[in-house]
Amino acid sequence: MAIRGLLRVGEVAFRVMDMKLARQHYGERMGLIETLEDADGRVYYKTWDELDHHSVVIREADRPGIDHFAFKVYDDATLTDLEPKIEAFGLKVERIPAGVYPKSGRRLSFVLPTGHTMQLYAEMERVGNTMGYHNPGVLPDEGVIRGFRIERLDHILLGGPNIEENERLFTEVFEMSVSERIIDADSKVSMAIFFSGSNKPHDIAFQAQPDGNRFHHASFRLQSAADLVHAADLIGKYRIPVDVSSNRHGVTRGLTIYFFDPSGNRNEVFTEGYMHYPDSPTIVWDTNDLGHASWSQDNVVRPSFFTVLT
Amino acid sequence: MAIRGLLRVGEVAFRVMDMKLARQHYGERMGLIETLEDADGRVYYKTWDELDHHSVVIREADRPGIDHFAFKVYDDATLTDLEPKIEAFGLKVERIPAGVYPKSGRRLSFVLPTGHTMQLYAEMERVGNTMGYHNPGVLPDEGVIRGFRIERLDHILLGGPNIEENERLFTEVFEMSVSERIIDADSKVSMAIFFSGSNKPHDIAFQAQPDGNRFHHASFRLQSAADLVHAADLIGKYRIPVDVSSNRHGVTRGLTIYFFDPSGNRNEVFTEGYMHYPDSPTIVWDTNDLGHASWSQDNVVRPSFFTVLT
Amino acid sequence: MAIRGLLRVGEVAFRVMDMKLARQHYGERMGLIETLEDADGRVYYKTWDELDHHSVVIREADRPGIDHFAFKVYDDATLTDLEPKIEAFGLKVERIPAGVYPKSGRRLSFVLPTGHTMQLYAEMERVGNTMGYHNPGVLPDEGVIRGFRIERLDHILLGGPNIEENERLFTEVFEMSVSERIIDADSKVSMAIFFSGSNKPHDIAFQAQPDGNRFHHASFRLQSAADLVHAADLIGKYRIPVDVSSNRHGVTRGLTIYFFDPSGNRNEVFTEGYMHYPDSPTIVWDTNDLGHASWSQDNVVRPSFFTVLT
Amino acid sequence: MAIRGLLRVGEVAFRVMDMKLARQHYGERMGLIETLEDADGRVYYKTWDELDHHSVVIREADRPGIDHFAFKVYDDATLTDLEPKIEAFGLKVERIPAGVYPKSGRRLSFVLPTGHTMQLYAEMERVGNTMGYHNPGVLPDEGVIRGFRIERLDHILLGGPNIEENERLFTEVFEMSVSERIIDADSKVSMAIFFSGSNKPHDIAFQAQPDGNRFHHASFRLQSAADLVHAADLIGKYRIPVDVSSNRHGVTRGLTIYFFDPSGNRNEVFTEGYMHYPDSPTIVWDTNDLGHASWSQDNVVRPSFFTVLT
Repeated sequence: MAIRGLLRVGEVAFRVMDMKLARQHYGERMGLIETLEDADGRVYYKTWDELDHHSVVIREADRPGIDHFAFKVYDDATLTDLEPKIEAFGLKVERIPAGVYPKSGRRLSFVLPTGHTMQLYAEMERVGNTMGYHNPGVLPDEGVIRGFRIERLDHILLGGPNIEENERLFTEVFEMSVSERIIDADSKVSMAIFFSGSNKPHDIAFQAQPDGNRFHHASFRLQSAADLVHAADLIGKYRIPVDVSSNRHGVTRGLTIYFFDPSGNRNEVFTEGYMHYPDSPTIVWDTNDLGHASWSQDNVVRPSFFTVLT
Repeated sequence: MAIRGLLRVGEVAFRVMDMKLARQHYGERMGLIETLEDADGRVYYKTWDELDHHSVVIREADRPGIDHFAFKVYDDATLTDLEPKIEAFGLKVERIPAGVYPKSGRRLSFVLPTGHTMQLYAEMERVGNTMGYHNPGVLPDEGVIRGFRIERLDHILLGGPNIEENERLFTEVFEMSVSERIIDADSKVSMAIFFSGSNKPHDIAFQAQPDGNRFHHASFRLQSAADLVHAADLIGKYRIPVDVSSNRHGVTRGLTIYFFDPSGNRNEVFTEGYMHYPDSPTIVWDTNDLGHASWSQDNVVRPSFFTVLT
Repeated sequence: MAIRGLLRVGEVAFRVMDMKLARQHYGERMGLIETLEDADGRVYYKTWDELDHHSVVIREADRPGIDHFAFKVYDDATLTDLEPKIEAFGLKVERIPAGVYPKSGRRLSFVLPTGHTMQLYAEMERVGNTMGYHNPGVLPDEGVIRGFRIERLDHILLGGPNIEENERLFTEVFEMSVSERIIDADSKVSMAIFFSGSNKPHDIAFQAQPDGNRFHHASFRLQSAADLVHAADLIGKYRIPVDVSSNRHGVTRGLTIYFFDPSGNRNEVFTEGYMHYPDSPTIVWDTNDLGHASWSQDNVVRPSFFTVLT
Repeated sequence: MAIRGLLRVGEVAFRVMDMKLARQHYGERMGLIETLEDADGRVYYKTWDELDHHSVVIREADRPGIDHFAFKVYDDATLTDLEPKIEAFGLKVERIPAGVYPKSGRRLSFVLPTGHTMQLYAEMERVGNTMGYHNPGVLPDEGVIRGFRIERLDHILLGGPNIEENERLFTEVFEMSVSERIIDADSKVSMAIFFSGSNKPHDIAFQAQPDGNRFHHASFRLQSAADLVHAADLIGKYRIPVDVSSNRHGVTRGLTIYFFDPSGNRNEVFTEGYMHYPDSPTIVWDTNDLGHASWSQDNVVRPSFFTVLT
């Protein structure tokens, strides 16, 4: 039946404290493609190989973080099917008509046990990647791949309490797999849980945090390690604040760089990582090997990675 | 609901004309890991990052080609669910008990409209990749990644008549997407159809051929373009017959090398390629741009690619 | 004493038959940086990481090929030192005053035994790579690295008779090494001779040809195999005629692509290759292994590579 | 005249405090090839693509650091030529007969103004890279490229006082270029000076240190960024102590990882970097941009990099 239900994180709505600096960061430097500035001043971006209208939205606010994130689902019937299941799980579902969110079909919105506002939608205006679908070639128009050469929004990591409740929602209702898990070696309590509903090692993950509705990072997929090196060079050139420079995660086996937008929201660029299937056993890491689980190329635990969120 | 139904091509059963040469090719040179030689002399291989017992089987025969291929499905209930649907589609389904095929659970077997024997199974003995699932690290034991550094069996391309009938089966019964299609520019008839049930640009494809049950190639996934270069160097070193050296496909955008095993069965190593989702529109190429569709780095049509099969 | 005498091929003067097409090719597509259009309509280009004013010159003519090539030498005293030695070798040396060639100091010009006009100069106006020499950073201004991402003009291969006479000049007078040689397996006659005066596997090479003053190719260095893949994608996108797509040379171990400018002049992009030192023994290939010597990833001899010159 | 005089750092003689651990580090893990264990227990290593007998020597001692380093020079006449010049510079030169150092021709030995013992030799027994010099192919025998896939010993960085005196020796007597320099922004005093006598951005460098004869690191060249990622993965797997994980130097533009051998001697793996020529202007960095000069991908000054030496 292939991939059905929740397809991917299709929209992340960031709060930024300075639109000019944020547009410089996401647009000019990272190279996301601006597709809209709406009447409320929100700016919409897509990556070069995404076909839908946008995946990133920024709005000016007095504090960083995200307002919501949204998964695209397979079709409208999926929304109809999921709504009562989410209600039965115990979350109140708000129906948002088409058009309330620009370029978007109707949405379901609900608050996760971890305090995050999550939405689902089946339709978004399609803008393409400039290549079309008939004899498209393999490269888009000149200038479309630029900046960090980001292919796609890949995944997000969020922090909050009750991550096991989120686990029950994402596995039982959304039927994703737990691809990996980090546990406390003594208490066996889950510190972070990684979910995949695709061949990617994770589509979304949650980190245990005392306060709810915290944002850890949004991650953008690059084609190759060579592009990761190029992104690292640009990050350094622009003096973008770096959280952790080039390394490989034990979790997911992905190559990674973490950096911050001018408002302190953490971004990641990501490439490689293994291919996940629903018959892949869950990989468990414990805190005895937290350095290697986090940063397998130097095994150094960075405490800020578990404490700095927006 | 994530990936369900048919997960991936999990087994390809090759006929080879000289076992010693074939073992040198698949084992010593390509670097597949031999997991079994059975009582009938069949040899079983896996790639380093596959967890199941094997994905490639070779047996000695007087002509090359494949005996069958098999998809792993999500679970046993999937077999139960699909059996009547395949029958309703019009194919006779044979039930093969567990254990008939070594290390494998029960199977369904049927002959495609293109003449190929296709099987489905839900269980195969798991042997892992030497890393385990608890604090596994990111690299397997020394010597496990060797030869061409192949991660996984990726996909197969088969030739035969009635590929539109296969399309109906793979889309309506197996609920895969048609990710790409090559058509004759004049007649609009499909020359090749590519199916994805995952994030891969294709899991299986069929090429129109006058004779049924023809094998075009099996493809093995590499991590990166750097590993493709390394594989190309080894192919050259071992004087392995090359069909088409390093190039990029327009279809799938994958980097590729085609070469032949000592019996003339075509193999591919493959990397990159875009990320497919079920909401990705089908990409159509026509014969006016067949060179770029096939080999986008030099646009040269290689007729043998459409005529040499086993 | 480090590198002295002839430093590198610093200028290649191409004849092209259509300036508009040539500028599209060398400028817009390959991404060379135009630094001058002179009063005679000649257009001058540099690569992004070259510091001197130009390395490629194109002029319109009724046939392709090159007018001359020039080596930059260490200093003016080198010119003074070499002039009598070249004369003693038996070549007539013409002195060309500074400024005759734009942006260039005085030159020595002479005709090689193979019929090619070779020049030497010690001074060229410096234009830099936009980074400066004080706290330069590691990346030039945006847009400076573009197209094929070419770092430098790397080497040239020329065809003509009497290549052993050239060998005597380049080793005895210019004191370069013969890094590699291709010989006829039977007659032991040299078919191609490769010279290095640096850590590069070759700075210039000569191929035996019945007619003199023939141009085989000019080669441009890329940073990495990843950039070679990118160049290959652009070559395919622009439908640039390809001679041989991605492969590795046995000679030099360099990764390579050969393609033609719109006038039929052969270009190469090149990366990797071993590090040469003057104590490296000469590597000899014979015609029994000509496929691997030429194209080590598929071992196929391409006869055109030995017969198509401009 | 190509490269003459001092060719490259050809030998580094390490002191290690535990031979078993050191052999595990340099041999089994880094993948250097052991070529000799001499009667005094010294162990000799070469990298896969070096042709001479060895480039690294380790001996057991009660403290880490190096005993000496040695440059290979062009020929024996170079030794004869340089001896009086070094004496004239003011250093006492010791003549060491051939064979005192295993596999080595005669040597000149002297103590640099920075306190380091430097040697020169023109001859070392040649062992090759298993490929030979006649139709060698492009890859050595299986297993020769292993571990970190190191191609060559690349350069060394040493610490001591009087680095400007070393500069005078390396430029005036050895006729190398100063490729780069780091100065104190206020006093303009040189903190580090980088010398090249080749196309490499540096062959040797000196860092100002109060105490003489200090060893900062020896660096090993890799083919590509992909191999750097692979080395980083192995460093993490083996839990080798990391000084600075993957980054790019502003100085040299090289991609780099620093790590320590079990005795605390710093090693580097290095790739990319620009191509140096003797007409390249010296690049100067000052302490106002020390972060970018050192680690251009995150701009973070690591003080230990200027204080931890052996």
